[in-house]
Amino acid sequence: MKQILLASTSTMFGEEYLAYLQPELKSFFEGISEIVFIPFARPGGISHDEYTEKVREAFHSLNIKVHGLHTFTDPVEAIQQAEGFFTGGGNTFLLVQQLHHLNLMEDLKAAVQGGTPYLGTSAGSNIGGLNMKNTNDMPIVYPSDFTTMGLVPFNINAHYLDPDPKSTHNGETRETRIKEFHVFNEIPVVGLREGSWIRVKDDQVTTEGTKASRIFIKDQEPYELGSGSILRF
Amino acid sequence: MKQILLASTSTMFGEEYLAYLQPELKSFFEGISEIVFIPFARPGGISHDEYTEKVREAFHSLNIKVHGLHTFTDPVEAIQQAEGFFTGGGNTFLLVQQLHHLNLMEDLKAAVQGGTPYLGTSAGSNIGGLNMKNTNDMPIVYPSDFTTMGLVPFNINAHYLDPDPKSTHNGETRETRIKEFHVFNEIPVVGLREGSWIRVKDDQVTTEGTKASRIFIKDQEPYELGSGSILRF
Repeated sequence: MKQILLASTSTMFGEEYLAYLQPELKSFFEGISEIVFIPFARPGGISHDEYTEKVREAFHSLNIKVHGLHTFTDPVEAIQQAEGFFTGGGNTFLLVQQLHHLNLMEDLKAAVQGGTPYLGTSAGSNIGGLNMKNTNDMPIVYPSDFTTMGLVPFNINAHYLDPDPKSTHNGETRETRIKEFHVFNEIPVVGLREGSWIRVKDDQVTTEGTKASRIFIKDQEPYELGSGSILRF
Repeated sequence: MKQILLASTSTMFGEEYLAYLQPELKSFFEGISEIVFIPFARPGGISHDEYTEKVREAFHSLNIKVHGLHTFTDPVEAIQQAEGFFTGGGNTFLLVQQLHHLNLMEDLKAAVQGGTPYLGTSAGSNIGGLNMKNTNDMPIVYPSDFTTMGLVPFNINAHYLDPDPKSTHNGETRETRIKEFHVFNEIPVVGLREGSWIRVKDDQVTTEGTKASRIFIKDQEPYELGSGSILRF
């Protein structure tokens, strides 16, 4: 039985880290006493220890202990024996580069496919898609491969933003970027606004959270899918 | 004698394509009757022909003929014999993937180092830097290498945007992204606002245009450099 949450963001404006997800996490991680945290995306370049400490504080109220994957001498064994996973946000290029470099992408995927609950936020959600080709991040390092876990049969654009009609800036809108992706790729993309997440329970995939998600399919007009909708391509 | 213009954007809000650069282009391309246009970044996924036609119209008033690089049977020869170059914007991953795939990056670099005038806008400017690790674009294709021409001894962040103090969005600011880049890289980065460009004349590199540029050096506070300033690292 697969159990996966892929959230657009870790933090809503003006709120504490992971605060808006606490009710969902309580039931998602029910019966679990400790998780393995994957800190490789390193937001702001902070250390793996600092990032793990931040996550530890957020999971304290759930009575769940947090162990950084970087602290294990045998990370493959740590992944295989984990009760649950959380991969935090930061830079998706860095996260994917590290997971491929350390040869952990496939082990992580196998564990989640085997039923270990997986929570991702932002970059940690992007790697739940088929590849990282819809990240908004800057390519600060060169990954050996853009392929990710493919826990869901589509890609995710985290922190999805609607076009700003008042903008005088010439950079591409998110929608334009995803349309350009579809000139060269067939994979559906879910634009996940901050406050929303994807939930996978066995083979049922739903969109959840406070905002509708925007669905992009090659050669079709994008459309909105409200919270609680089943995603099927 | 090197002659290079690397502009942040092709188009200012509400203006025609390349309009704001026309006075600069008139002197930059003086005595040149035709240029080779490199359309591989393909904004919006338009065809190479459509993109070249758009550029042809913009160069009409300069009395300069435009030939798309994709129309030559021998693109290496076309590059070696060109009087001048223009590489347009679009997606930097696509542009770099194509230039490496077609084995043209080094030939283009050699021609520009040898004195053929080079104009880039946006993605076309990014490839003037040492590598493409400061692009804002979405990684819709996987380049075999992030290395670019290194016409200047730094990287460019085109369409540079200042943080929006009113934003409630959790995506990283441009400044945060460049700081993250400097956790893993030593290369200086020039944040080039729309309306500004880099000019190289022999070995002198200056910042030009209507806006100051923002300079990012590892482990230093970013600073502003006004139009007409010499860039030296």
